[in-house]
Amino acid sequence: MATFAQDEPDTSIFNKIRKAELNSSQIPQIAHYLTDVSGARLAGSKGYKHAANWAVSKLKSWGLANARLEEWGDFGKQWDIEDFSITMRAPYVTPLRAYPTPWSAGTKGIQQGVVYLLSPQQYQDSSYLTQHAADLKGKWVLLTGNANKGDAKFKPAAERLADTTLANLKDQYMASRADIEREIKGVALYKKLDGLIEKASALGLIIASRTNADGAVFVQAYTGFRVSDPEGIPQLSMAIEDGQRIKRMISSGQQVEIAVNIKTQTSTADTKGYNVVAEIPGADPKLKAEVVMLGGHLDSWSAATGATDNAAGCVVTMEAVRLLDSLGLKPKRTIRIALWDGEEEGLFGSYGYVKKHFMDSKTFKTTKEQSKLSAYFNLDNGTGKIRGIFTQNNAALQSIFTKWLKPFADLGATTVTNSNTGSTDHISFDWAGIPAFQFIQDPLDYETRTHHSNLDDYDHLQMDDLKQAAIIVASFVYQTSVRSQLLPRKPLKKEVFVFEGL
Amino acid sequence: MATFAQDEPDTSIFNKIRKAELNSSQIPQIAHYLTDVSGARLAGSKGYKHAANWAVSKLKSWGLANARLEEWGDFGKQWDIEDFSITMRAPYVTPLRAYPTPWSAGTKGIQQGVVYLLSPQQYQDSSYLTQHAADLKGKWVLLTGNANKGDAKFKPAAERLADTTLANLKDQYMASRADIEREIKGVALYKKLDGLIEKASALGLIIASRTNADGAVFVQAYTGFRVSDPEGIPQLSMAIEDGQRIKRMISSGQQVEIAVNIKTQTSTADTKGYNVVAEIPGADPKLKAEVVMLGGHLDSWSAATGATDNAAGCVVTMEAVRLLDSLGLKPKRTIRIALWDGEEEGLFGSYGYVKKHFMDSKTFKTTKEQSKLSAYFNLDNGTGKIRGIFTQNNAALQSIFTKWLKPFADLGATTVTNSNTGSTDHISFDWAGIPAFQFIQDPLDYETRTHHSNLDDYDHLQMDDLKQAAIIVASFVYQTSVRSQLLPRKPLKKEVFVFEGL
Repeated sequence: MATFAQDEPDTSIFNKIRKAELNSSQIPQIAHYLTDVSGARLAGSKGYKHAANWAVSKLKSWGLANARLEEWGDFGKQWDIEDFSITMRAPYVTPLRAYPTPWSAGTKGIQQGVVYLLSPQQYQDSSYLTQHAADLKGKWVLLTGNANKGDAKFKPAAERLADTTLANLKDQYMASRADIEREIKGVALYKKLDGLIEKASALGLIIASRTNADGAVFVQAYTGFRVSDPEGIPQLSMAIEDGQRIKRMISSGQQVEIAVNIKTQTSTADTKGYNVVAEIPGADPKLKAEVVMLGGHLDSWSAATGATDNAAGCVVTMEAVRLLDSLGLKPKRTIRIALWDGEEEGLFGSYGYVKKHFMDSKTFKTTKEQSKLSAYFNLDNGTGKIRGIFTQNNAALQSIFTKWLKPFADLGATTVTNSNTGSTDHISFDWAGIPAFQFIQDPLDYETRTHHSNLDDYDHLQMDDLKQAAIIVASFVYQTSVRSQLLPRKPLKKEVFVFEGL
Repeated sequence: MATFAQDEPDTSIFNKIRKAELNSSQIPQIAHYLTDVSGARLAGSKGYKHAANWAVSKLKSWGLANARLEEWGDFGKQWDIEDFSITMRAPYVTPLRAYPTPWSAGTKGIQQGVVYLLSPQQYQDSSYLTQHAADLKGKWVLLTGNANKGDAKFKPAAERLADTTLANLKDQYMASRADIEREIKGVALYKKLDGLIEKASALGLIIASRTNADGAVFVQAYTGFRVSDPEGIPQLSMAIEDGQRIKRMISSGQQVEIAVNIKTQTSTADTKGYNVVAEIPGADPKLKAEVVMLGGHLDSWSAATGATDNAAGCVVTMEAVRLLDSLGLKPKRTIRIALWDGEEEGLFGSYGYVKKHFMDSKTFKTTKEQSKLSAYFNLDNGTGKIRGIFTQNNAALQSIFTKWLKPFADLGATTVTNSNTGSTDHISFDWAGIPAFQFIQDPLDYETRTHHSNLDDYDHLQMDDLKQAAIIVASFVYQTSVRSQLLPRKPLKKEVFVFEGL
């Protein structure tokens, strides 16, 4: 079979890539600029724009072509924190571990008030909120359930995938359209409930994290960024330990007062969203019109610098194109990197890009560009090294990727699974009938600690893992670029995009 | 041998204690009041006084006799945080994870300034500080070394002692007089260095934690509490991740500005220190003049509520006397609980108590009281359950404690070691020739996370472990109270107290 011969990878090129990365990696520097220097990269924020502009200029400085910001559609508000503090003031003074929730309203100065405790059951009961409106007035409303302490601390926070796990990977993170419909309904309900709390003239809403993670605070939001969203009330996310402390204090009869200052800067001067795009033009005149894409999302949540979610993926893919370009490997097809905006809110940046370039979301009519894109490779499962790849249920790729992966067995990457993985940007491409892949990565402490938390900072990056990932991503992208044919495709399903309507 | 017969414990009593604790423990409530409701319990602070007064009234309410605060000597300043915030202001705005160092000066409002980076080598070089005085002026000085990332996250944060570890326990935490002399010299040097930073008109000194612990901030101090100590400069302790972030930013050419507000309340109206003491009078007229003591230190550091260090020990020993009293077990000797002040600064409360009651620190003359105190049992190694006891190199106790421990084999407590353990209050009693013991406890996440950190809160307590400890402590104290003789003693060494001069 022809594919057998053609898909033997050029291991001399792979070795060149590997050697260059291990000898002169720029991963720590790229990571530093995307995280430390840019700050949090919430979609629409100054930090996002700083990082996106820096990436464009860095890609240009390496000699990539067409490096630019590319608009993908309407995002919404620019929101930045200008000042923040939170302190318990009574019965004693102590700092608390909390962060403004993205797109929170400001407090208009320091607002001190008594804390009113709300259980999840009470919060979701609009009649309770209406009946207790007078109690909520002028208070900080604390929403906290029961602590889930468990025995997590007796397990390592970080883990690598065991061989048996790799051999038995099932579909993961796959949201269904029904899940999303539920989510949309949930957001509408939360908006209504928050509206009742606002109507009661509460000072604001504090939501305690749900799982114990040694003081980590998980900070995210599902609404508030659209131009049509009301300003709403001040909202904060609090460490579960502080939430539970206040809950116990109130339950035993203490009156707890806290003082909060949230100053934000919100702007609707530019409500568009922007991806970062750049290219290494193909060296083969016949194939250069065809494209291989790679990327990860550049946006993050707001409580840390989004190092593992997902500076990691941006760092690895930037490093991969730097290697491919600087080594003069002459990839035949054009290689295009894209760093996506608005992934956290629902794959907005990649979906906007795919709609614009590859397929109409209503007619499902595909473009000529779609027919020329061989594949999209994504990295967005934290800082763990690559252990393999999901074919995303495209069995024709099993033998091809198995061959490409073979030279990396000594780096721990051996698994090609036909299972699916979801919840990140390759899903947008997959929707449009383009072969699109997320690599299998060691989870490390992504789910337990850093994912959407205030701990997601540079020091949680594992540099050796990222170097390994850059070697494999660069090699896969190179091999796709020189393959005699485009990668085989699955039939196009012509379904409404799973995250449509978010 | 007589001891063989007499030291068979009364297991029916032990079973009564065990049953009562497992059926109607008050440990969660005691812990709640000592931590959540009192707040941090820095020696001399309002939080310490709140907890001490609460403990006295609780012990009284249980029916204990002579429950009171007892002065142990001069401590120093009362210091409380009235307000605190810290924010990075440039190149972007973000909250930072830091806490005022105990006895820090206030900032007199929000002080914003550029961060000046100081390595440990530069800090310890007074000529460097003098030469760079002009550079430090008006700046926040950040002292941070290299991150020690290691692979700690691949190990569980919490561990229980393995049988082989228990079988091979060596001396631990034993500071020598030479260690303390070095410490005293070190403190004098730091005072001098901090004085140079103050003289340079820096805004203050920020010290980043030294080990990575997922955002945990370790907050303690060795000086500043004495009435004779100068007010000094504002000082903060910062999470290593934020310290390293700022270090990397400055190293790559960013100008970092931070704004800090520390408002403190300091008072020298009452510079004395106070222990909590209460008694269950002995039921045997002939033996009631003899005493068995138990306790742990009540004071903590300032960044959390000192749950594992050492509300845990206070909770367990309070619960133990509550059990002994409420069960009407009629212990023959008097049982006295003491909750110590100023342990963190150098075993001040217990040493003061021992000097006052048992032995002169210069003449080494012991008192009649000393001859009537059978033993002191201490608990201060975190929230882990009891796995055994250190005889503190008193081999005569090996067979006695082995018998007493036997009924608790099913609870995991089996080890009697002749090794020594140090760094906590039994050392004061041991110095005065009194049999004094710290139990062997499972370390859990004490060394890795909670010890002196901002994570040392109620949710890090393991209630089942504390219940087990209360059962064993109550049983050992009971058994000591009914033993026909006082526990055998080691010869008195008549040495200067190891921590003398701190």
